[in-house]
Amino acid sequence: MSVTAAKGFTAAGIAAGIKDSGQPDLALVVNQGPRLAAAGVFTANRVKAAPVLWSQQVLKGGQVSAVVLNSGGANACTGPEGFQDTHATAEKAAQALGHSAAEIAIASTGLIGVRLPMDELLSGIDKAAAELSAHGGEKAAIAIKTTDTVHKTAVAEGDGWTVGGMAKGAGMLAPGLATMLVVLTTDADVDAAGLDTALRSATRTTFDRVDSDGCMSTNDTVLLLASGASGVTPEQDAFAEAVRAVCDDLARQLIGDAEGASKDIRIEVINAATEDDAVEVGRSIARNNLLKCALHGEDPNWGRVLSAIGTTSAAFDPDKLNVAINDVWVCRNGSVGDDRDLVDMRYREVRITADLSAGSETATIWANDLTADYVHENSAYSS
Amino acid sequence: MSVTAAKGFTAAGIAAGIKDSGQPDLALVVNQGPRLAAAGVFTANRVKAAPVLWSQQVLKGGQVSAVVLNSGGANACTGPEGFQDTHATAEKAAQALGHSAAEIAIASTGLIGVRLPMDELLSGIDKAAAELSAHGGEKAAIAIKTTDTVHKTAVAEGDGWTVGGMAKGAGMLAPGLATMLVVLTTDADVDAAGLDTALRSATRTTFDRVDSDGCMSTNDTVLLLASGASGVTPEQDAFAEAVRAVCDDLARQLIGDAEGASKDIRIEVINAATEDDAVEVGRSIARNNLLKCALHGEDPNWGRVLSAIGTTSAAFDPDKLNVAINDVWVCRNGSVGDDRDLVDMRYREVRITADLSAGSETATIWANDLTADYVHENSAYSS
Repeated sequence: MSVTAAKGFTAAGIAAGIKDSGQPDLALVVNQGPRLAAAGVFTANRVKAAPVLWSQQVLKGGQVSAVVLNSGGANACTGPEGFQDTHATAEKAAQALGHSAAEIAIASTGLIGVRLPMDELLSGIDKAAAELSAHGGEKAAIAIKTTDTVHKTAVAEGDGWTVGGMAKGAGMLAPGLATMLVVLTTDADVDAAGLDTALRSATRTTFDRVDSDGCMSTNDTVLLLASGASGVTPEQDAFAEAVRAVCDDLARQLIGDAEGASKDIRIEVINAATEDDAVEVGRSIARNNLLKCALHGEDPNWGRVLSAIGTTSAAFDPDKLNVAINDVWVCRNGSVGDDRDLVDMRYREVRITADLSAGSETATIWANDLTADYVHENSAYSS
Repeated sequence: MSVTAAKGFTAAGIAAGIKDSGQPDLALVVNQGPRLAAAGVFTANRVKAAPVLWSQQVLKGGQVSAVVLNSGGANACTGPEGFQDTHATAEKAAQALGHSAAEIAIASTGLIGVRLPMDELLSGIDKAAAELSAHGGEKAAIAIKTTDTVHKTAVAEGDGWTVGGMAKGAGMLAPGLATMLVVLTTDADVDAAGLDTALRSATRTTFDRVDSDGCMSTNDTVLLLASGASGVTPEQDAFAEAVRAVCDDLARQLIGDAEGASKDIRIEVINAATEDDAVEVGRSIARNNLLKCALHGEDPNWGRVLSAIGTTSAAFDPDKLNVAINDVWVCRNGSVGDDRDLVDMRYREVRITADLSAGSETATIWANDLTADYVHENSAYSS
């Protein structure tokens, strides 16, 4: 499982003392080759954390020999000094591992606007390097948790090759603690361009369609590393599908572990004129606080869904909108449909189907409800 | 005060039995002339309630003799039957008042997706017509409340003329109960075009910049009626300023009465390249749930402000962003600024200043915090 499910990778997760709690807070993932190909996607937020700016540069070369990840501090909004801290982290890892710093990606998560405790971080790298193991994937996944209640890993098996991965995130952005971080590894023999194509295709319909609370982190990072250790070069379609499956699995785990959430909301927009329309409508529904509250209260409030659709620029006729909640078509032709009392909302998963009657495109967005626990988690503790 | 502060207007507010609670739920505002000029602005939501569709047609003629407003039901997402209900309401008021139905505006607020109890509504119109009075403004303001804890009125005096108004709304969209409704009246002698110019200018920088919870109603309606009863034609600038002052006063009252809110958040974006940039940034900050939670917890979490700015398309350099919370510049040049412990957040009003360092334009947006009470109000009661 995790990042060491694929051959050619070692990993470690340790407590470096970055977190005051003494919990694990530093992970190392090392590609032992023979190939060092890599691809990455990063937050679209224009305020990017130092490790994102660093790793974007590293990924331009298409080679990553190791990834250093820390929880306990996002190193975001920390100015030139914060960037120097990231650089020093890469240099330290390069020295410990005998690689070039220009091939070492960095990812951080935690408080925004606070410098990292560099003494602890740098000495932690030596400690982690000493513990690297082909069975270290679980420990690495544990070390990147912030408010996550569980660590998150997934794996997909190909014909003689494997894609594995780990993720952290509790909602798109955790309380005072930033971010979704994902590292995927494969022993398939795929070059950087092939990885990039598979990764962008996969994230576009998985992580990019998770919208727990509408908030975009400064640190979001998804990396895919290939060691080539299986010696097998898969068909691009089969490889892309395996990457997508692992991303989808991890994305669902993120939604399932979102802070304070009591419902996982699956929003399927159907019969849209374009896929962009479907995504825009799905996102608007996903972000409607009044709907999120109503679903928390197990109230199948379809009026909120129509209000949300109405704020978009998607093609639709208000009199031809249909909405189902848990498969009961409570709104037909923009007006009252089947009896809302037929909607059973006892379970954690809620399915909203929004039929735009404007075409044949579709998109699915995952969201969470809005709860007093979410407010509490994000207000009661100073960050 | 209210809609009868200006000469030439009568009003009434009564309990028609639309609300199960027996509380007042029907208001009538009548322009006695000599002029019947009017202007209106309506929700930008593409899913519009029947009374909005009706009143938009009425306003095209530039003449409104009376407004019928009801709480207890939004008449939104009710199909062709709902539109017929609105039409019947206008016909009934026309008959009771001796006017043309084509000059009677209608506004509704309450549950979405439920037909109005027409027997109660229509007989209520007779009752309200019988109680019309030049002192009925307060009663009218009370009759349009839904989850509002107080009724909202304002007045501005010109040189021999007056602008008065009433508003309802508790957040942009109340729980299961929709909407901001506003009726402004003046005895100034201004034609429909002059009213329209003044009203659009005023709402653009007042009601349009209130963003309590990011949710846009299907029923929002702001009407301005002129009787000309003062016989005075004011300078357009002075008139526009009076209309703006009344709108601003009412908008602040809406924010102050937002559901479950414990903070009123004033977001001032300064040094933007364009006013549109300033508004986009202000809105993004206003809608960030994590920031809204943090402010509820009296946590001056400027990292959330930067994260929100980073999601916009406004012109800025991340390294030149400055953010003050209650006048303490906690973020300078995109990084840590003055000591956040200096920020005093004990009071209801919180002031966020976001300096984009990209120009000289500015905009102010008002928002509320996100609280467990908001979640409770919008989830605990089925709607």
